[in-house]
Amino acid sequence: MSDAELYKRQGMGNRIGFGKKAALVLVDFTVGFNDPNAFGGGNVNDAVQNTVPLLAAARRNRVPVAYTRVMYAKDRSNVGVFATKNAKLADLTMDNPLSHVVPELTPIDGEYIIDKTEASAFLGTGFASWLAMRRVDTLVITGATTSGCVRATVVDACGHNFRPIIVRDCVGDRALGPHEASLFDMDQKYGDVMGSNEIIAAFTHQGGK
Amino acid sequence: MSDAELYKRQGMGNRIGFGKKAALVLVDFTVGFNDPNAFGGGNVNDAVQNTVPLLAAARRNRVPVAYTRVMYAKDRSNVGVFATKNAKLADLTMDNPLSHVVPELTPIDGEYIIDKTEASAFLGTGFASWLAMRRVDTLVITGATTSGCVRATVVDACGHNFRPIIVRDCVGDRALGPHEASLFDMDQKYGDVMGSNEIIAAFTHQGGK
Amino acid sequence: MSDAELYKRQGMGNRIGFGKKAALVLVDFTVGFNDPNAFGGGNVNDAVQNTVPLLAAARRNRVPVAYTRVMYAKDRSNVGVFATKNAKLADLTMDNPLSHVVPELTPIDGEYIIDKTEASAFLGTGFASWLAMRRVDTLVITGATTSGCVRATVVDACGHNFRPIIVRDCVGDRALGPHEASLFDMDQKYGDVMGSNEIIAAFTHQGGK
Amino acid sequence: MSDAELYKRQGMGNRIGFGKKAALVLVDFTVGFNDPNAFGGGNVNDAVQNTVPLLAAARRNRVPVAYTRVMYAKDRSNVGVFATKNAKLADLTMDNPLSHVVPELTPIDGEYIIDKTEASAFLGTGFASWLAMRRVDTLVITGATTSGCVRATVVDACGHNFRPIIVRDCVGDRALGPHEASLFDMDQKYGDVMGSNEIIAAFTHQGGK
Repeated sequence: MSDAELYKRQGMGNRIGFGKKAALVLVDFTVGFNDPNAFGGGNVNDAVQNTVPLLAAARRNRVPVAYTRVMYAKDRSNVGVFATKNAKLADLTMDNPLSHVVPELTPIDGEYIIDKTEASAFLGTGFASWLAMRRVDTLVITGATTSGCVRATVVDACGHNFRPIIVRDCVGDRALGPHEASLFDMDQKYGDVMGSNEIIAAFTHQGGK
Repeated sequence: MSDAELYKRQGMGNRIGFGKKAALVLVDFTVGFNDPNAFGGGNVNDAVQNTVPLLAAARRNRVPVAYTRVMYAKDRSNVGVFATKNAKLADLTMDNPLSHVVPELTPIDGEYIIDKTEASAFLGTGFASWLAMRRVDTLVITGATTSGCVRATVVDACGHNFRPIIVRDCVGDRALGPHEASLFDMDQKYGDVMGSNEIIAAFTHQGGK
Repeated sequence: MSDAELYKRQGMGNRIGFGKKAALVLVDFTVGFNDPNAFGGGNVNDAVQNTVPLLAAARRNRVPVAYTRVMYAKDRSNVGVFATKNAKLADLTMDNPLSHVVPELTPIDGEYIIDKTEASAFLGTGFASWLAMRRVDTLVITGATTSGCVRATVVDACGHNFRPIIVRDCVGDRALGPHEASLFDMDQKYGDVMGSNEIIAAFTHQGGK
Repeated sequence: MSDAELYKRQGMGNRIGFGKKAALVLVDFTVGFNDPNAFGGGNVNDAVQNTVPLLAAARRNRVPVAYTRVMYAKDRSNVGVFATKNAKLADLTMDNPLSHVVPELTPIDGEYIIDKTEASAFLGTGFASWLAMRRVDTLVITGATTSGCVRATVVDACGHNFRPIIVRDCVGDRALGPHEASLFDMDQKYGDVMGSNEIIAAFTHQGGK
């Protein structure tokens, strides 16, 4: 029996699709994660570029938009295990240009910016509450890296009962092996992997609901 | 540049090791996840067998022990996105023998059993508080599946500032590709992957502290 | 200046009212909290009786219903600070009749039962996720005790962005001073205090939406 | 039977005391909460002044110190139910001098500043993880207001299994009725109410452990 058959027989990989109201999150699309000399590389920049029209479609259709940034205090008072394991993350402070969202995807007024110290957009933040307030039931997820903060956000979105939609061409990673492996796992266990064209169509259909 | 060099240059893969006090968690080592005809297969049973001496060492040295089980209400009132994506999980109810911990690893009085509906042992449970109460700073993680509930637990342990130690020969998955890919990711980003022999030695050294 | 004027001038006590979809929670309406010789007394039994028609109205109008129970493991493995400060709480185990919901308000299939070890219905439980899944934005709160688990649930509902509505005649406490003081605080800072008649009318208006 | 007898007979009001390692938190001791024309009044300023020697003792004995501030985004993108119920809270943005810690208690490097949008210092923040990392088991709580953010923080500290110690002369409220009522409730149900002199002695005894 192939792995695909095994997963299917064990009940995984169901399609869950869109619910009634979606939001869009851009995970760590910051200068540092788009820079191969910092935390980027691989196909991250492709994902950034592919997210430009997706973000425009979200704004056009009044889909709520959120961003995450990795952000530590300059005095390192909030450095924990994650930034010990990944020793350069704690350099990402408010006055470090690497910490800020890439210019192509700059947030506008009314969009929610989540400064976080952990991998997931949910852990130790108000994100789940922000989504609940807007009666969002579906979370479209883009960003970097696929096997890191994107995946952690997808697993938590699922665990908080927001349907995760992972945008295949709008997530990127510094290395392609982990990128592909996480796309497979997420599609089987936590959410639906879809292309940005399908999402743009769905946003247009939702149209500001 | 190889992937390994890239990860190293970007500051990942640091060793963090043991802190001052460890606990042991067995993630979803239940009858169902040890049964290839339910949710098991691959190297899960090897992981179960390798955990027998590790659990004995933990008990001998008074290391706090916790177990997780996937457990849904019989009337499906608490089924959410995770058990929709993985359609057979909701069969795991209290009266289903597949839901219970495998006989080789049966919990004893005073050990903590976490019934959960999501992938991570932390989400929607009292696990972080239980660890804090015991002043644990290091969480030794075993269980199934490596790419599923084990990894979700590892990512959350890291995010809650408990140092994750993933026991290489005591975690298993239904398919080896996802197993290996998750071991790599976890070792680079969230915790240290070690063998059970090293852990048993560390427990003995900690000796009931 | 009176306290009331001070609160008003400082911006507190706004009415927030119902949103688009409500759920009903019954906090700790268990045999033990309805028994003056266990954890009850004061006006708790009045609150139980007044909740009977409110629960019927919720069911009639397909308003989602949840219950909480204080529930500890028989081996006390999950006893923490709360059950140390309140030393008799840990007696509330699954086989103790005091732990179960009072007969007048017995849950029916499809209603969500939250077993908890802390004061709030949200802490260490899947309650926020259960509400988000149903796109609930308003939480009608009844139960015991007003100054204990009810208030903790109200504060957390507010913090998770679910509008709290506290039902004046359906919350009770073992002592009337703390009951009244908490009603005042909650009405000023966290939610709207309303009578059950108003809620029943609102449920009827919402009618299964 | 008096209320006090009733509480005692029901198992409440146990002393839990200090554990092995304490931290100190100053809840919302900001310019705005110390100003009767903003959110202050009553005995808040007394509490601020009484906290000066307590903070000095904590620093002298290397007790970890944290501060909270209510802080909203200037574009109001993170305003939720709490700042709707309390309509002036959303004015507390980074560029508003009312948002900052009072000069007498200015944080120093290495102390942890928690910017929050909800009442509790724990909800949607990394505070529990920060405490766990330091193996803290006891949280000494000061700040404003007693019946608001202090009490919410106390209830959550208890729920996260950190022993709450409420410093009677270092917590303040705009009105004395709610102040006293919350001191009574907290002492009965969630933590021990003690005077700052006792705490300073305990810090000295703990001495940098």
